[in-house]
Amino acid sequence: MKIPPVKGTRDFYPSEMAVRNWIIDGWKRVSVRNGFEEYDGPIFEYLKMFQIKSGDEIVEQLFSLQDRGGRDLALRPEITPTLARMVNQRINSLPKPIKWFSVPRLFRAERPQKGRLREFFQWNIDIIGVDDTRADAEVIFTTIDYLREVGLTNKDIKVKISSRKLLAAVLRSIGIDSEKLELLYPLLDKKSKLSEDAFKALLEENIRDQGKVKKIIDFMAIDNVNRIAEVVNINSIGENAVEELNEVFVALDVMKVPDYCVFDPNVVRGLAYYTGIVFEVHDIAGDLRAICGGGRYDNLLRDFGGTSMPATGMGMGDCVLEILLQEKDLLRKKATVPRLDYFVACAENLSTHIDMRLVAQLRSLGYSANFSYKTGKLGRQLKEADNQNAKKCIIIGVEELKDNKLIVKDMATGEQELVSYDEFWSRLKA
Amino acid sequence: MKIPPVKGTRDFYPSEMAVRNWIIDGWKRVSVRNGFEEYDGPIFEYLKMFQIKSGDEIVEQLFSLQDRGGRDLALRPEITPTLARMVNQRINSLPKPIKWFSVPRLFRAERPQKGRLREFFQWNIDIIGVDDTRADAEVIFTTIDYLREVGLTNKDIKVKISSRKLLAAVLRSIGIDSEKLELLYPLLDKKSKLSEDAFKALLEENIRDQGKVKKIIDFMAIDNVNRIAEVVNINSIGENAVEELNEVFVALDVMKVPDYCVFDPNVVRGLAYYTGIVFEVHDIAGDLRAICGGGRYDNLLRDFGGTSMPATGMGMGDCVLEILLQEKDLLRKKATVPRLDYFVACAENLSTHIDMRLVAQLRSLGYSANFSYKTGKLGRQLKEADNQNAKKCIIIGVEELKDNKLIVKDMATGEQELVSYDEFWSRLKA
Repeated sequence: MKIPPVKGTRDFYPSEMAVRNWIIDGWKRVSVRNGFEEYDGPIFEYLKMFQIKSGDEIVEQLFSLQDRGGRDLALRPEITPTLARMVNQRINSLPKPIKWFSVPRLFRAERPQKGRLREFFQWNIDIIGVDDTRADAEVIFTTIDYLREVGLTNKDIKVKISSRKLLAAVLRSIGIDSEKLELLYPLLDKKSKLSEDAFKALLEENIRDQGKVKKIIDFMAIDNVNRIAEVVNINSIGENAVEELNEVFVALDVMKVPDYCVFDPNVVRGLAYYTGIVFEVHDIAGDLRAICGGGRYDNLLRDFGGTSMPATGMGMGDCVLEILLQEKDLLRKKATVPRLDYFVACAENLSTHIDMRLVAQLRSLGYSANFSYKTGKLGRQLKEADNQNAKKCIIIGVEELKDNKLIVKDMATGEQELVSYDEFWSRLKA
Repeated sequence: MKIPPVKGTRDFYPSEMAVRNWIIDGWKRVSVRNGFEEYDGPIFEYLKMFQIKSGDEIVEQLFSLQDRGGRDLALRPEITPTLARMVNQRINSLPKPIKWFSVPRLFRAERPQKGRLREFFQWNIDIIGVDDTRADAEVIFTTIDYLREVGLTNKDIKVKISSRKLLAAVLRSIGIDSEKLELLYPLLDKKSKLSEDAFKALLEENIRDQGKVKKIIDFMAIDNVNRIAEVVNINSIGENAVEELNEVFVALDVMKVPDYCVFDPNVVRGLAYYTGIVFEVHDIAGDLRAICGGGRYDNLLRDFGGTSMPATGMGMGDCVLEILLQEKDLLRKKATVPRLDYFVACAENLSTHIDMRLVAQLRSLGYSANFSYKTGKLGRQLKEADNQNAKKCIIIGVEELKDNKLIVKDMATGEQELVSYDEFWSRLKA
């Protein structure tokens, strides 16, 4: 009986696994050096947990299931609700600030397409308990710290930064009702995916006032924080949103990554829960979806039944990132299958246990080692060593064995060395 | 709205995550040094894939779900069917032997109890394409190589080895029908969980011949391969099962782990697909379920629509292992949260950007570093450094800053050193 894999999922053969591990190990290493601690939650939660704040698109794409008691569960489409639940559960005992990261496997029952699959990995970093724009800047810095480590430069990617608080203030100053804002965010978020005319038509359909629509479009065309005043009366919006944006750009300057960052009011973020600074990273060519996105969500813990607590974070999926790294040829050299330290080959008329004993000793010392199950000609075994990408091959020959010696062959240079058994082991232990 | 986690799942706060990472990183490291390559598959597969060979218990405990097209899917309860599917898909292009490992997250909708949860991690190693008992021995060696690395000795655990082929031959020689064997395996597998009388009653119920039942019980009491002949006429069973067992024990001797291993015909394994050598690792105290189990399954690839291909493997869950490691006090010292290299504290009347700049520079050099968002008294910041388990604290004071100097405090010894800014960086880069 031959059964295919489910559409939108991936099989990770060793070469694909090497890419996945390289991406995820980098996420973990950069998180730790930026002072984040790792956490994780369950793969499934009660269905209703994802219906609180995740936004319509996510709720529509949930994989739901039931436990044996008939309770409705769902595979997690994002980890932020779990984070809110876990923090709320121990809010009094956790030292603040909470700086946590996670690399959850996530699930969305959507139509598979380029950069979007039904299961994927997502790097999440969050700082909870800090009402300070330096925390937003630190999240952005950590994001850049990873992207530049894997080889992406400011010629490849751009961090686009804006503010939900600013957007809300501008929209209110234009005369949009506060109640209408949550409805508008997902529409404004679509701008980069639509033509100018289509976007304008979409806004007019929902706002029904050409003057207001023009003001929104003018605001979204600004490319510098200093130019906001040209379009909006900053004093009239009565918020510190512009000051906050300036603070973030100063902090990014201090942390020496200003050349990656721009102000861009087109960044809105689809999710409902953002309250302040928001950002996305895009490829400069503009061919792909956002590589990652994040921002401040000061009300989420309260929405999940906890006390009010400031928070800011970022999520980066592996699918779009991998496409970009592939396009920039950054995977080929770096994401390689681990190399074998030693392959032990053995002349065909020797006992099949000699190689096995040697391999066990090497492994016990912490070296990776393999031997051949094909107890045939030496040439065939050397071919196998080559296939397994071994650094060195130890050859046990009949004559050498009599003298208690081994041949050590360097698989890169082809050089062979005859070494006594004792000498070989004392070198390894050193 | 406060929503609890689902029963039988785990929240991994940073301290629990450190334990999980320590266990899994060890699995990965030992796999690689034993010459296994990593693979993984999707979290869910078509439901029917798990109904082919997984055995009744597993099929009853599947978490099932549907995709948007209404197709029946299930969360994976084990990874072997996925392994069989993946190998079959590329059977001609994969070099043999296939030595693969994986650390899948698995799901079983069972009643949560000690050592059994609804979601868990399981280390899997498999050797495919080798019809040689040395492969069975290598799987057992790799298992021991991990267990002894985490600190378990032959005073803590025992590898119990038997053979399905031997068991089948013995049962047939006693007069049990071949067709009845698959039904009997799950019953015989229950022996260690039942009293002598209850086990006897269970057998009598299914076999209805006291003489045959006695012979089975006598066979299962043997504790040495050499004593099999005392109970069974070896020549009459006409199989090489005893020879195979002897070969495995010789190979384990060669690999220097014989003191962990015993022959034990009580090891049957519940799963239907085993065909040869089978084994389980148990705690010597006998308080816990099996720590792991495995064996040869030469027909599985064929059962999944591929060509016939010899195979042998092992699976070890994290739940029972963690309980044992906890009991033996092996987690406390080894599974620790990563320590922070530097915490940067700053006198309260200095610019809040000085610490941030320093931290960004440290991180860019690869050191883990944090600063305080509490821009208050130095004492409070040093307390925070201590809470974060920092190795060193850099103190930026007003007077020191004027002289371009830093105080570097060793958090373990309490020693403080006054270093020039240039000296500090040249040391770090060295």
